[in-house]
Amino acid sequence: MTKGSITIVGLGPGKESLITPEARAAIDVATDIVGYIPYVKRVTPRDGLTLHASDNRVEINRSIHALEMASHGKSVVVVSSGDPGVFAMASAVFEALEEGLSSNPHWVDVPITVVPGITAMLAAAAACGAPLGHDFCAINLSDNLKPFELVEHRLRHAARGDFAMGFYNPRSKSRPHQFCRVLDILRDELTPNHLIIFACAVSTPEQEISVVKLSDATPEMADMRTVVLVGNSGTHVIEGTNVINTPRSQLGWNAS
Amino acid sequence: MTKGSITIVGLGPGKESLITPEARAAIDVATDIVGYIPYVKRVTPRDGLTLHASDNRVEINRSIHALEMASHGKSVVVVSSGDPGVFAMASAVFEALEEGLSSNPHWVDVPITVVPGITAMLAAAAACGAPLGHDFCAINLSDNLKPFELVEHRLRHAARGDFAMGFYNPRSKSRPHQFCRVLDILRDELTPNHLIIFACAVSTPEQEISVVKLSDATPEMADMRTVVLVGNSGTHVIEGTNVINTPRSQLGWNAS
Repeated sequence: MTKGSITIVGLGPGKESLITPEARAAIDVATDIVGYIPYVKRVTPRDGLTLHASDNRVEINRSIHALEMASHGKSVVVVSSGDPGVFAMASAVFEALEEGLSSNPHWVDVPITVVPGITAMLAAAAACGAPLGHDFCAINLSDNLKPFELVEHRLRHAARGDFAMGFYNPRSKSRPHQFCRVLDILRDELTPNHLIIFACAVSTPEQEISVVKLSDATPEMADMRTVVLVGNSGTHVIEGTNVINTPRSQLGWNAS
Repeated sequence: MTKGSITIVGLGPGKESLITPEARAAIDVATDIVGYIPYVKRVTPRDGLTLHASDNRVEINRSIHALEMASHGKSVVVVSSGDPGVFAMASAVFEALEEGLSSNPHWVDVPITVVPGITAMLAAAAACGAPLGHDFCAINLSDNLKPFELVEHRLRHAARGDFAMGFYNPRSKSRPHQFCRVLDILRDELTPNHLIIFACAVSTPEQEISVVKLSDATPEMADMRTVVLVGNSGTHVIEGTNVINTPRSQLGWNAS
């Protein structure tokens, strides 16, 4: 039997030219593609390639399926948007591996490779200047897999550390009130002039970016296609342009 | 006169197949390449392309040069390693623009585009599993442009927020003692079993990755080619493998 494998690739934020040749090459030699419906749709069908699209929130089942196929000799590519290691499929595949290893000891022989991709936060930053040009945090605002108290705890530490921030999954239909609470926490910790960037459908033809002061930010400005960036204390719009920059120097910082 | 432009591109962590087609296309139509010597060396010379390699720590002069050439009609590509928006050239170009605009008002007409790239931290994470699979911070440990007190302040908040972390520029000849201090701060805030990953020359043939407990980490494990990753409280090696994973779920978290 041919030795199977799993390659977990990131398709980047949406634009075809932001998919790395490494990810493309893995897709080109795959026998099976596994992933969430809209990401599998981004793969061109061809002879010898089976597409297995599945719904959101079945990441573990999808991962088990990938492990089973690979252990039977298939060259499986698991597709994620962005970077598979950032709030995406890499952790899910490794969790499935860990949970299933004792009852499926043959899984240990499946080589698993992660191919990094352009994550939405960094594509959003590039689209509006360099707002993450200094120390920053990435926070998933969804409380599907963690208590909202932990989201709040991290938001407060990120704000007190004067980190710039990138938020994934800021808002969904099932928890419309939470992003409102996130903005309240930020208002509690930061100045009203702090810049907030709402970047929707980054790198696609539908890309929309709006920049507001924290005092003017409202929950409706974000949906599930939005990445939200928060500047640090030095982030500003360069006068006469629409460029947002976070200066590299914070030599004037003091703890008071 | 042809209208000039600046495109700031990320060459990724080192491997050619991790350069996006978008970055490659910008290089292919450039008249001038500007950047730090080792990154400019990665660009293949061709007729009609002038390479301008400069030393480290002259980012602002290099940016002014790029702005001047672009305002005279050149298609300038500024090359960075990794992602230009993450501790790299994007902020430097925008700073030079901001500082120079009043005396060079023609610079405002230069279109400046940032093309994101695979940043070292995420390539390092991919190489060892999914250690940044949950909320994380990126911190530049160099105190060239910020007081070390701010590094310490951010480290403590990142640790108290139970963020995973990625450190850029952990160590240099000019400040050998500081990474020692960083490890002391982490030991003060985190458990001895916390996992630390030293990823050197990620994605190149010289790649070396070592994983140790915080209690066993020593400053010599890092140099300027190293990205250091720190797990969160749940990060662990999956038994029977060498995969490092940070679980997606932290439902059991409580504030105590």
